[in-house]
Formats: sequence, C-alpha cells, structure tokens
Amino acid sequence: MSTTVPSTAVTSGPIEGSTKEYRLVRHAYSDQSHVSDELRIPFRRVHLTNGEHLDLYDTSGPYTESEPVLDLDAGLARTRDHWRRPDPVDGAATQLAWARAGIVTPEMAFIAEREGVDPDLVRSEVAIGRAVIPANHRHPESEPMIIGKAFAVKINANIGNSAVRSSISDEVEKMVWATRWGADTIMDLSTGKDIHLTREWILRNSPVPVGTVPIYQALEKVNGDPTALTWEIYRDTVIEQAEQGVDYMTVHAGVLLRYVPLAAHRVTGIVSRGGSIMAAWCLAHHQESFLYTHFHELCEIFARYDITFSLGDGLRPGSIADANDEAQFAELRTLGELTKIAKSHGVQVMIEGPGHIPMHKIVENVALEEQLCEEAPFYTLGPLATDIAPAYDHITSAIGAAMIAQAGTAMLCYVTPKEHLGLPDRDDVKTGVITYKIAAHAADLAKGHPRAQERDDALSKARFEFRWTDQFNLALDPDTAREFHDETLPAEPAKTAHFCSMCGPKFCSMRISADVRAYAEEHGLVTQEDIDRKLAAEMDSKSQEFIDHGKKVYLPVV
Amino acid sequence: MSTTVPSTAVTSGPIEGSTKEYRLVRHAYSDQSHVSDELRIPFRRVHLTNGEHLDLYDTSGPYTESEPVLDLDAGLARTRDHWRRPDPVDGAATQLAWARAGIVTPEMAFIAEREGVDPDLVRSEVAIGRAVIPANHRHPESEPMIIGKAFAVKINANIGNSAVRSSISDEVEKMVWATRWGADTIMDLSTGKDIHLTREWILRNSPVPVGTVPIYQALEKVNGDPTALTWEIYRDTVIEQAEQGVDYMTVHAGVLLRYVPLAAHRVTGIVSRGGSIMAAWCLAHHQESFLYTHFHELCEIFARYDITFSLGDGLRPGSIADANDEAQFAELRTLGELTKIAKSHGVQVMIEGPGHIPMHKIVENVALEEQLCEEAPFYTLGPLATDIAPAYDHITSAIGAAMIAQAGTAMLCYVTPKEHLGLPDRDDVKTGVITYKIAAHAADLAKGHPRAQERDDALSKARFEFRWTDQFNLALDPDTAREFHDETLPAEPAKTAHFCSMCGPKFCSMRISADVRAYAEEHGLVTQEDIDRKLAAEMDSKSQEFIDHGKKVYLPVV
Repeated sequence: MSTTVPSTAVTSGPIEGSTKEYRLVRHAYSDQSHVSDELRIPFRRVHLTNGEHLDLYDTSGPYTESEPVLDLDAGLARTRDHWRRPDPVDGAATQLAWARAGIVTPEMAFIAEREGVDPDLVRSEVAIGRAVIPANHRHPESEPMIIGKAFAVKINANIGNSAVRSSISDEVEKMVWATRWGADTIMDLSTGKDIHLTREWILRNSPVPVGTVPIYQALEKVNGDPTALTWEIYRDTVIEQAEQGVDYMTVHAGVLLRYVPLAAHRVTGIVSRGGSIMAAWCLAHHQESFLYTHFHELCEIFARYDITFSLGDGLRPGSIADANDEAQFAELRTLGELTKIAKSHGVQVMIEGPGHIPMHKIVENVALEEQLCEEAPFYTLGPLATDIAPAYDHITSAIGAAMIAQAGTAMLCYVTPKEHLGLPDRDDVKTGVITYKIAAHAADLAKGHPRAQERDDALSKARFEFRWTDQFNLALDPDTAREFHDETLPAEPAKTAHFCSMCGPKFCSMRISADVRAYAEEHGLVTQEDIDRKLAAEMDSKSQEFIDHGKKVYLPVV
Repeated sequence: MSTTVPSTAVTSGPIEGSTKEYRLVRHAYSDQSHVSDELRIPFRRVHLTNGEHLDLYDTSGPYTESEPVLDLDAGLARTRDHWRRPDPVDGAATQLAWARAGIVTPEMAFIAEREGVDPDLVRSEVAIGRAVIPANHRHPESEPMIIGKAFAVKINANIGNSAVRSSISDEVEKMVWATRWGADTIMDLSTGKDIHLTREWILRNSPVPVGTVPIYQALEKVNGDPTALTWEIYRDTVIEQAEQGVDYMTVHAGVLLRYVPLAAHRVTGIVSRGGSIMAAWCLAHHQESFLYTHFHELCEIFARYDITFSLGDGLRPGSIADANDEAQFAELRTLGELTKIAKSHGVQVMIEGPGHIPMHKIVENVALEEQLCEEAPFYTLGPLATDIAPAYDHITSAIGAAMIAQAGTAMLCYVTPKEHLGLPDRDDVKTGVITYKIAAHAADLAKGHPRAQERDDALSKARFEFRWTDQFNLALDPDTAREFHDETLPAEPAKTAHFCSMCGPKFCSMRISADVRAYAEEHGLVTQEDIDRKLAAEMDSKSQEFIDHGKKVYLPVV
C-alpha cells in the first residue's frame, strides 16, 4: 500500500465523556469445545457525574481508545484471522452455510454479546436469511456486526471521491469520522482515478464492513462507455475487489431489458447510476443484462469469500411522482428470484430499497419486499418523503427512514445535506450519520428493542436533574449539544444551574416540577393509590406548607 | 408605540427567483349581494427558466414585495378593518358563530381562494369546529388563514425574549424572518421585561396570526411567584392582550389539582411552563385551578374579540418514558370538556398536543384527541421521536411531526436545533421553519392534498432536465441549495451543465436516463402498450443505432 495518508490525518481519541472498553468473551464451537477463541467486544462507556455509567454499542474501532496506536500504513489488527474458521459447507464458506449447519461462528458469538441477545438468535436469523453478517474472509480487520430486523437498526455512510474532487486522505478520514459517530457500515462509491488504492486504504483501516458497487470500477476500465462492458471485465473487477476484502457488493442484476422502457416516461427516469449503466448496456446490445445471465457464476465467487449480495434497486424512484411504480416493483420481483438463487449457493443477501416515497406508500415497500424476497434484510436509501427540500434531504429522508425502519427495514443508507447538490464534506458526513442514528434509534424505540430506551431514560433523567454535562455526554453529538448550550450561558457554573437559558431562573418548569416531586415524596405519595388516597385526606392542611416551600422555588442556585 | 425598531432592521425583498403577487377576489355575503369587499389574496410566483411558473401559498406579507414600503412604527395596513363584519350571533362575534349561521365571511372567502377550495368547505369545517380561523378583530393587519385537517398542514414558530437575552428588535426580525420562510402563525413567548411592548411591535407588523401564553405575563405581574396569581390578575392580562390583538391564547385550564400528583413520579415531571405554574398554584392553594373554575368567564371575553382557544397540554410528556401516560390523557379528557364549553359560547378551539412520543404511540394521540375533543384541530409540539439528540431536536421532532400530521394534526409547532439547550437565534428560526415545512408538506403529500405534489413534480422535472436554477428556486430554501451546489461547482455554466458534482460527467444517471427517454420517444414508445409491443418487435434491429446514439452520452456539455 503506497503511503500517502499520515496517521495524523484521521480523528482519534475518545468521544467527550466516554471511554472505550472491551468485554472479553471466550467462544468455542459446540462440537470442538476444547478449543476456544478470545473475542474482545468493543463498547463505549459514558461516565455520568452521579457515579453511574451507560454502555453503548460502538462502531468506532480502536480510533476512540484513549491512546490509540495508529499506523494507517499497516492497517488495523487482523483480528478475525486469529479466529478459527469452520470448513466450507457444500462449497460455501459463509456465515449462512454455517448457520444452517447449526454452527455458532465466532462472528455470531461476537455479535450476540454486542447486541445483548442469545447467540442462537443470531444463528437462526442468519440461517433463514432474515439477517446477514457481511464479513469477507479477506477483511479480517472488521468487527462483526449483523443486519436484520430482529436486531438494532443499522446505518450506512457512503463515502468516495469522484472525478470532480476529493482525495484518498479525505476519504480515509471520512471513514474514521463516520464510524466515530456511529456508521455501522461504509460504502466506498469512488468513481474517479485511484479507485483501487482508495479502497485499499479504506479496507485496511476500517473497523466496519465495507460495501462497493463494482460496476463503477468496471466502467472506469472501459473508459466510461457502458456499452463496452462485458461479463469478463465485470467478473474480474469483482474478484479484484473480493481479494481486497470488500464485505458486500451492490449488484444491479434486476435491471432487465424488458423493464427499461417502463422507466422511460417517468418524471425522473432512472436515477441509480448502476441501474442507468445496465439499462444503457441492455438497450445497446438488446441482450439481457450480463449480471442476470451470469448470476450463478457470481454467486460462486461470493460464496468463496463470504461476500454478501446487496441486490441493487437500479430502477428505484427518483421522485415522489415515480414512487411504487411498475418499473420499481417489476425489478423487486426479479430481486426476489435472485435472492433464492443466491441462498441456494449459501450466499447471504440483502435487498436495496428506495429512494423517494411519500409517507403513505412506505409500508407497502416493506411488505412487498418481505413477501417477494423471503424477508431478506431490507436496506433502503432514506426514503425522502418529499422532493422539495434540496439542502435538507438528510431531514426529508430521515422522516422516511425512521418510518421504513419501524416497518422492518434493517439498515438505512444515510443521506447528507449535500444530496442532489454536491459531494459531502466532513461536516456533511457527520450530519448525515447523526441524523440517521436518530432515525434508526427512533425505530428501535418503536420496535421495542430491549436496550434502546435505556439511553433516552438516562438522558431525560439527567435533563430533569439539571446534570447538563451528563445530558451532553449521553447525546448522539456531545460536542454540538455543549456548544449550543454555551452560546447562551457560557459560564462553567451554568452547567450545574438549576435552570437554563430558554426560560430563565423564574420560569423553569423543570424546577417547579422537581418541587412537585419533592412535595409528593415528602407527603408519602409514592404509588398512584397513595396519591389518590392521601390527596383527598391530607392536602387541605398542607397547602400552607407548600407555600413556604414554594417561596424557595425561584431562587437561582448559581 | 415607542420607536425602537428601524425598518431596516427586518429582512425584505422577494425570495430568490420569485415575485409576490396578489389575486383579487370580490366577496359578497350571500344575503347582502349588492355590497362586496375586495380581497387581495397573496401568493408567491416562482418563475422558471422554461417560461412556466408555479404559484405557492405565501405567508410572508408585504415584506417580500419587490419594493416594499415599510414603516414598522406605523405597522402594516389594517386591511381587515375595511371588510364588513357581520353582526354578533347570540353574543359571539366569531367566525364559529357566523359559520354556524351559514355566513361566509370575508376571512373565509380569502382562505378558500388561498387554499384552492370551495368557500363552503371552509365555512362548514369551521361550523363543526374541525377548523379554526384565528383572527382577533383587533389584529386587522393579519392575512386570514385556517387551521384544520381538511386544509394544508400549518406550522407555528415560537419567538420571544427571555430574562437571559434577546431584544425587541431581534424578535420583530425573527417574526418577519420566520414568516418569510413559511411560518403560518407566530407565538410570542416573551417572558422578560418589555413583554407588552415587544408584543405590540410584533402584532402591528405581523401578517400572520399571533398566539401567546397569557400566564407568562400574569406571572411577571406577581414578580414570578405563581402562588400569588389570582383570577383577576390573569383576567386583566387576557383583556390587555385581547385589546392588543392576540389571535389565539394558550390556556392550561386542564391542569387540575387532582392530576398534579400523577406527574410526580414521571421521569421528567411537568415540562410545560404554564402547566408547572398552574400545578404549583393548585398545590399551594389546594384549590381547583382558576383557569378551570372561571372558564365560562374566559369564554365570554374570547367571544367578544374572536380569540381562539389553544387549550394547552400542561401535563404533556417531556420524555419518551412519560409518553401517553395517565397524567397526559387525564388532562386531555378535561380539555374535551372545555372544548364543548368554549364552543357553546361560540368560541373557536384548538387543542395542544405533545411533546416527546415514540413513533408507535403517535397515532393514539390523534385518535384520542379527535374522540375526546370533537375533532377540534390538533396542534402539536413535534413530537420528538427520541430524547437522545439535543442539538438535533428539529430532526427528532420532524419525524414525529410528519407522522402526527399524516394522522390528522392540523398545525405543528416547530422545534429548533436549540431546543433544550438555549434560545434560538435567527439561523435557528430558519432551520426550524424549513424543517417543519418539510414535515407539513410530507403530510400534505401523504394526505393527498390536491396542490401538494405540484411542487414536488415541478422540482423533480427541473432536476431531471438539469434546470439547476429552477431546482434551487422551487426549493424550500433556494439560497442554501444554491450555496451547497456552488461549493463544488461554482462556475455559472455549471448551472446548465448536464451533470453534477456527485457523479461527474461520465457517471450521470440522469443523463443516461434522458437518453433512454430520447430513445423511447424516437422509437415511438409513448404508452406502456407501445413499449411492450414495439420492444419485442423492433429493438433487435435498433441496438446499433442506440450504440451510435450512446457514444454521445458522456460528452460533457460545458
């Protein structure tokens, strides 16, 4: 790997108020219990001022350790190489094949501890294809994670340079930066020169699975003329990327010749790059897509490395007007066929989804995907709930993303404020990631994920008790929360003030509320029944007492 | 009015790419058809580069005219004073009383033209209390608007200074600024000194209805001691504000003594300022809230000015943990009782709603509100779908807001990025407004509002045709969209380039897609049937032709 990125080029050190911790787990295959692997499961510990702490799922890799030893040139430790890998099952060396064979792999055990679930839930969800573990054998630096609706909703951050701007160094930092804030996977969508080298730098240094769209690089190899593409060029590109360690690949194998005209009279035609490339190829050759006709061969390659298919929605709608149309759903039916083929090869599959969808048409997308694709994990881009807010499409899409995740989508591809307008910079990447963490977490709450509400409760409790520092540190973005607070009340004592700048000391409802609680506790109003009973009996005589107490309510503490 | 705000202190002039237009409508009461009022209905015309235009609902008042004549000291023209006002019906000079009597008022005619609906729909929705027209007779400067689920979803922007910071001049500019970007109403939540004067400046210069929470000013009058409040002090404050022209008032009359202990053991107690003030009063006096016991008297005052009740949810949940609890719903039942009382006085009513609600508990809020409060318009603050993202609560709440509006909420109170952290500045106000316009519009689309999708389609068509300038000008925030684009491709010719910075010239799916369409049209593939038929018959022989055509695809235009 040519050294072009100094280790100082990436952000490192703990997130404010947190430390990086590892939980050690010994894992042994059930049939080989005399040998075991040591797994170090990472998490982020938020230290609270009241002595408590909260442990959070963490995607940031060693970069957030207190004193990380970084060598970007060497890459991260090849941890998974030291774990024992089961033998292939029917030619497939994949998590799917092993799960079907009843084997709980080290990756599954790692994930179970990370998600706080039973290892056999991980195995069984993978076995029936309702969850995937993208983990190419040649990306041993990655920390195992799972994508499936029985688990926490995940988010992906797209990075990658284009012909117009951006450098390798920028992209490596974007990867580190995106995972720092919670990206569960990264897609490298580079289309410019140095496409191979950029990917190598990202893969060797990425603690999360990396996805790509191989057709982009294949197109570079034919100087950008899609009609000059061939199966052989594409296949060789896939193998090149497989050898590098790409964990999942978007393949637009559902864009069939006969579907292309369905998109011709749309308001926004074909908006997927891969979809439009394949459409152009199909029309030019008047042949069926080589991705479709060679799909079995592709599956054999994927099975060797355990690459996960991300079956691309090349005909996804690019506008509200085109949502849920025949072109989109025709392709989805084909993705359903391909899902069955891939699984018959022991290859893991997820399905990509739209795009631009008005709210009332969102649930239909999930229902149809589950029906047609055997509940393979759905991986959607947003969707944007309206077209009218360029520069705010992280928000238009967070609305759709939260709703589609509530309905069952397993992973959300982020959208940044630059969507439709330009390439995201570092700030945009952070905004996109935080926004999508919100959508994913809102869905986890709505789905009743067992650990989700812990964080809301901890933060709300801190808010109610005026533990400002804890409120910041428990936030998705402690730095910005602190900064916004300090704009109004910058003095350090204000961090412990029993009021805030919105209402000032006299109007603070939280303060009054605390007094109400104190009053209730003072008077033994502990349960609802107590409250009802005692209120009737006692309150009359106590009102003067509350007045005395109440006179103190508005004295500022600072 | 003491002159402290120069006219140069507010933002004026058209929004980029648009002009302010007025449509003239003559309106006569059906029973007095020989006399009519001339109504000038404002809208914003977006001029497109292809010679077309799109007219949009506009809330910005004369400030966005090309050469506005502004005199903040004199205030806006008192337009509604020149319209004939029907006689009171049963003592009530209200839109509700007139609607019930079958009268289409000038305000209703104005709204019908503005919303593009039949005037009798406006009248009938007001008559049954499913919509309100907040329009105090003493705020004749306002342009009539309607809040109800049969109409476009509206948004409110809160402004107002506090003891800690902000000036009158800042607040007037925030009002102008918020309405420029689409705020349908403004609430002045000032709590510091100069509360009367600030409100006067805002009212005299506001083209949209203004709401307040009178208890805030009443509390100032008793030096911040809630236990010192009395009905008389509150009543006099309401009359003072009524005389100034406040269009709707939040009244926390549903916070009853017996509900207060229900909130004592919540994670975040009582988070509504008004709610906590009344709770403190009730506990201190061990008496029922004077807002509740004097509610009839309050209705009589409201009926004289046509002030609309915004029945406050003083016990709204302030955290995910407290959502949909007994305290919240007990108060809602009382608001239902009060709704009936207000309507019996001919007074218009809307109902305020939460707050912090996880997605799966949102719909229940709307269903219960409609059931208990006779479908009075619901007016919700967000709700935030999670607690964990201070500094991004415009986004956490936009998710909830879009969903609750889809379910039937008529007006959304915005949340800015500073929520929970500090007072919003001018930028925060804009971010909050734009974010809530997104949520409202997403709901309009989902509800099938007849005009909503026009704008999405126009913008998406512009996007597909690479009319960059039109894409910017049709956006909710043209300035930021343009700025983001220009960061990557600043040259003016790039505005007509047939590609953008995300993919560069070679990878542009929109370009390929345009070629697919050109190909389809060239070959007569106009309807779906044509496509199916001709594809089978002709495409084989045409592939070479497409290749020739395709070779041109990737030549950059600039």
